[in-house]
Amino acid sequence: MKSLLSEIRHNPLLWLLVAVPIVLVTEKAAPEAHTFLFVLAVLAVIPLAALLSHATDTISAKTGDAIGGLLNATLGNLTELIIAVTALHAGQYMLVKAAIAGAIVTNTLFMLGASFLLGGLRYHVQEYSRAGGRLYSALLLMATVALLAPSAVADLDLLHGEALTQRLSTSLAVLLIITYGLGLVFSLHTHKEFFTSEEHGETHTQGPIGVAVGTLIATTLLVALVSEIFVESVQKAAERFGMSPAFVGFIIVSIVGAAAEMTVAFSAACKNRLDVSVSIALGSASQIALFVGPVLVLLSYMVGPAPMNLQFWPGAVTMVMISAVMATFITSSGRSAWFIGVLLVFIYAIFAMTLYVVPPAAQRPG
Amino acid sequence: MKSLLSEIRHNPLLWLLVAVPIVLVTEKAAPEAHTFLFVLAVLAVIPLAALLSHATDTISAKTGDAIGGLLNATLGNLTELIIAVTALHAGQYMLVKAAIAGAIVTNTLFMLGASFLLGGLRYHVQEYSRAGGRLYSALLLMATVALLAPSAVADLDLLHGEALTQRLSTSLAVLLIITYGLGLVFSLHTHKEFFTSEEHGETHTQGPIGVAVGTLIATTLLVALVSEIFVESVQKAAERFGMSPAFVGFIIVSIVGAAAEMTVAFSAACKNRLDVSVSIALGSASQIALFVGPVLVLLSYMVGPAPMNLQFWPGAVTMVMISAVMATFITSSGRSAWFIGVLLVFIYAIFAMTLYVVPPAAQRPG
Amino acid sequence: MKSLLSEIRHNPLLWLLVAVPIVLVTEKAAPEAHTFLFVLAVLAVIPLAALLSHATDTISAKTGDAIGGLLNATLGNLTELIIAVTALHAGQYMLVKAAIAGAIVTNTLFMLGASFLLGGLRYHVQEYSRAGGRLYSALLLMATVALLAPSAVADLDLLHGEALTQRLSTSLAVLLIITYGLGLVFSLHTHKEFFTSEEHGETHTQGPIGVAVGTLIATTLLVALVSEIFVESVQKAAERFGMSPAFVGFIIVSIVGAAAEMTVAFSAACKNRLDVSVSIALGSASQIALFVGPVLVLLSYMVGPAPMNLQFWPGAVTMVMISAVMATFITSSGRSAWFIGVLLVFIYAIFAMTLYVVPPAAQRPG
Repeated sequence: MKSLLSEIRHNPLLWLLVAVPIVLVTEKAAPEAHTFLFVLAVLAVIPLAALLSHATDTISAKTGDAIGGLLNATLGNLTELIIAVTALHAGQYMLVKAAIAGAIVTNTLFMLGASFLLGGLRYHVQEYSRAGGRLYSALLLMATVALLAPSAVADLDLLHGEALTQRLSTSLAVLLIITYGLGLVFSLHTHKEFFTSEEHGETHTQGPIGVAVGTLIATTLLVALVSEIFVESVQKAAERFGMSPAFVGFIIVSIVGAAAEMTVAFSAACKNRLDVSVSIALGSASQIALFVGPVLVLLSYMVGPAPMNLQFWPGAVTMVMISAVMATFITSSGRSAWFIGVLLVFIYAIFAMTLYVVPPAAQRPG
Repeated sequence: MKSLLSEIRHNPLLWLLVAVPIVLVTEKAAPEAHTFLFVLAVLAVIPLAALLSHATDTISAKTGDAIGGLLNATLGNLTELIIAVTALHAGQYMLVKAAIAGAIVTNTLFMLGASFLLGGLRYHVQEYSRAGGRLYSALLLMATVALLAPSAVADLDLLHGEALTQRLSTSLAVLLIITYGLGLVFSLHTHKEFFTSEEHGETHTQGPIGVAVGTLIATTLLVALVSEIFVESVQKAAERFGMSPAFVGFIIVSIVGAAAEMTVAFSAACKNRLDVSVSIALGSASQIALFVGPVLVLLSYMVGPAPMNLQFWPGAVTMVMISAVMATFITSSGRSAWFIGVLLVFIYAIFAMTLYVVPPAAQRPG
Repeated sequence: MKSLLSEIRHNPLLWLLVAVPIVLVTEKAAPEAHTFLFVLAVLAVIPLAALLSHATDTISAKTGDAIGGLLNATLGNLTELIIAVTALHAGQYMLVKAAIAGAIVTNTLFMLGASFLLGGLRYHVQEYSRAGGRLYSALLLMATVALLAPSAVADLDLLHGEALTQRLSTSLAVLLIITYGLGLVFSLHTHKEFFTSEEHGETHTQGPIGVAVGTLIATTLLVALVSEIFVESVQKAAERFGMSPAFVGFIIVSIVGAAAEMTVAFSAACKNRLDVSVSIALGSASQIALFVGPVLVLLSYMVGPAPMNLQFWPGAVTMVMISAVMATFITSSGRSAWFIGVLLVFIYAIFAMTLYVVPPAAQRPG
């Protein structure tokens, strides 16, 4: 516990942990205060995500290269997964899908772009390994193709269209998970020498593994509790703020879920370790696309009121595709300067503006 | 004839030649056995394609660099051309178009991807010349733009839409053939030093040119006969297997037509001569797009019941475009490892799954 | 004045200046001779654009690096801007939008392609700096995303769709202008060492700055007068020639507006200074996309009969996107040969053929 406490003292993000008991109590005391609950839930999720990420790192470091890398890769987006499972259980498929697409886009454009911008403000030109960028870009491009297919089939307006889309989505989910697994074999085993420089940064503040496992389990439970409050309140809070569910899922949920990783990516960029930033941003995006999303499709058979498919509304597919192409183009040079960061962040701003402007009714998938 | 016989002994593919007489006899004896005829026709086309390809290689080698390269480039997809002309003559335009689009996609994703995979299983990292990849990618991108245009015009739902689409398609066909011709001047004449390493592999088993020309003519006739049986039986066999015409044209016809080239490309990849594999796969794809397809449009004025246009159904254009972009991205590095092959083959699998799932009625172009 | 006269003697383009008084007189004498007036206006705009461009260059050279670069970047497309403002004032929004999209496409495909082709006919392989190409490609890609958004929103068929599209367009216009400004800071100030080799060529024929400012003002007025005649006559002349307004705006206006820059880009290519050609072609295209277009949206609140939005018809967005992607792909190698030029020019030809074939009614945006 000492290391956890010293961690809290050094990381201002963790002071937000005080929001966790407040939101749990408020939910009992004033379950109708949706907007207040929403804000509290957002504030509570951010430090919990940071703790989760820290515990995962510690366990990975203790268990050695191969298993550690696997654990890190699998649990890296645990927060997003828990929030999405909660929304799945509540049958809010629009929110789940917006969160999946939004997490891909937010990690690819905003996290990467802001890293380039923050790094570029301190260093004239920054260099980074191209191997990681190429692998993750290729994975993202493939996932984009997989997301296109069900939407294209759904557009055909067929007799048994829904059943076909569902069948195709389930097969694609299995294919994507296999691809993700083979990608791990490739980057952690057969060709790991191309990806070695990408260890995550904060390895110096690790406590014993028992504490880490305990933290992991306890925090997961807390995130699950807070996620439930978040998912319940988000709809009504969004209406209050005049935001569409697509905007909330795409932008708000994504930024909240990735807040912990962003602090690591940004601080690495400021230390001129752009390899780490690129690896976190694009690695996380491709993990969402090839692992978290497909797992949610398969889980929906058990957890949700009905199976969920991979059919996104056309704008979401276009945004994911543009993000994947921009990531491919931008990371192909292995160099960065501040203006590259500005461009990526501005493209993200265009997406956010578009989603904000469009009224809720127009964004439900057919 | 001796060299032909020794060729047959060394190439197990050619044992399938026994299917040629069987299919011709069966067609007379049992013309209603569609499924059986279809399977036999597929088995018979594969070794004939190998013979055609071998004869073309021999003649090219004898006639010297410039004319040989020209011949090889022009007759390289003779099998696909004969099958397509037979389908054109039968008025099966849906099958012809699916075969054109499918051949581009199959060569770009499956032949290239399986070459990378097979080579990558033996060699840790393989290198190849980027010049060939760049040229063919650029040609494929341009052809994709040309395929987009008529489909976009057809979507506009105009008063004389069909006539306009036809006029545009014919002009584009001429433009594409000119581009293809200039591309040959570029790669075989003015800038041939960038493309020299790409001679095809099997040059050690050549017989005299007279035998080769004879083989070429005889095999062409046999392919034409078998193609007729294939085109007649494919529709009913597809219904039997529950496959849509789009799936048959896109996947089955393409793989059958390219089987001979695939064996050469795969064996080159296993010998670490990836230059040859890339050149066969992408060269063949761009030849289909810029030469075979446009020639079929022009031939349709003479051979078919009505002129054929270049309007593909939207999914086909999207698949061709994704293949061209992936080829561009993948070959820009000049290096390969097994996972790159997995990615390309899996994208091909996504396309195949999508086409398999969609019922026949939804795939006819407007 | 002497330097102006010697300039006229050396530059055959300037002999066309004789068309300026003729068109102004003809407009008074025979205002109904639309076709004749159209041809005269085109002939008169070309030398005026050359004078404008020359005066801008002179002033830039005199005012030093930073301000000069800024002036050159801002006034570089003055001709296009004046024509567009005149059309805006006349409420011809279709023509304005076609001219914006067409200028991007014409500069990216035709000016760049013809430069590669003309240079490639003299030099076997030409090399150029990749930094400029990468920056402008990235700017073009971002602008394409910004053009996609309003068209996507307009497609949704919403209750207050037009108002939303307008609001989004205005916000995007501001964002694009900010991006353009930051891009100038990047290329002229913080990272100018990457872009130094790109000074425009004709710096040896400068007169005193007073003459240049006088020429700039006088020529601007003349261009404005001629533009008015051009905009008035173009519609009726187009009907006469059987051309759609989209074809006229996209192809004719773009080529006329860029004629002066083209002569500089082409002559640089012939002198093996491809850096200059790439910088003029792509720099001009990205300036239209990120500065001229957005400025016209903002100006429409003051000048036009109603606010103009950034919603283009789908074909225009697709063409701009293809141009941006091709520019990205082509300039990523930093090398060129004649066939690359052929490909770019042929893709432009595909666009021109498509626009020519489609009847006027189908091209009005929703």
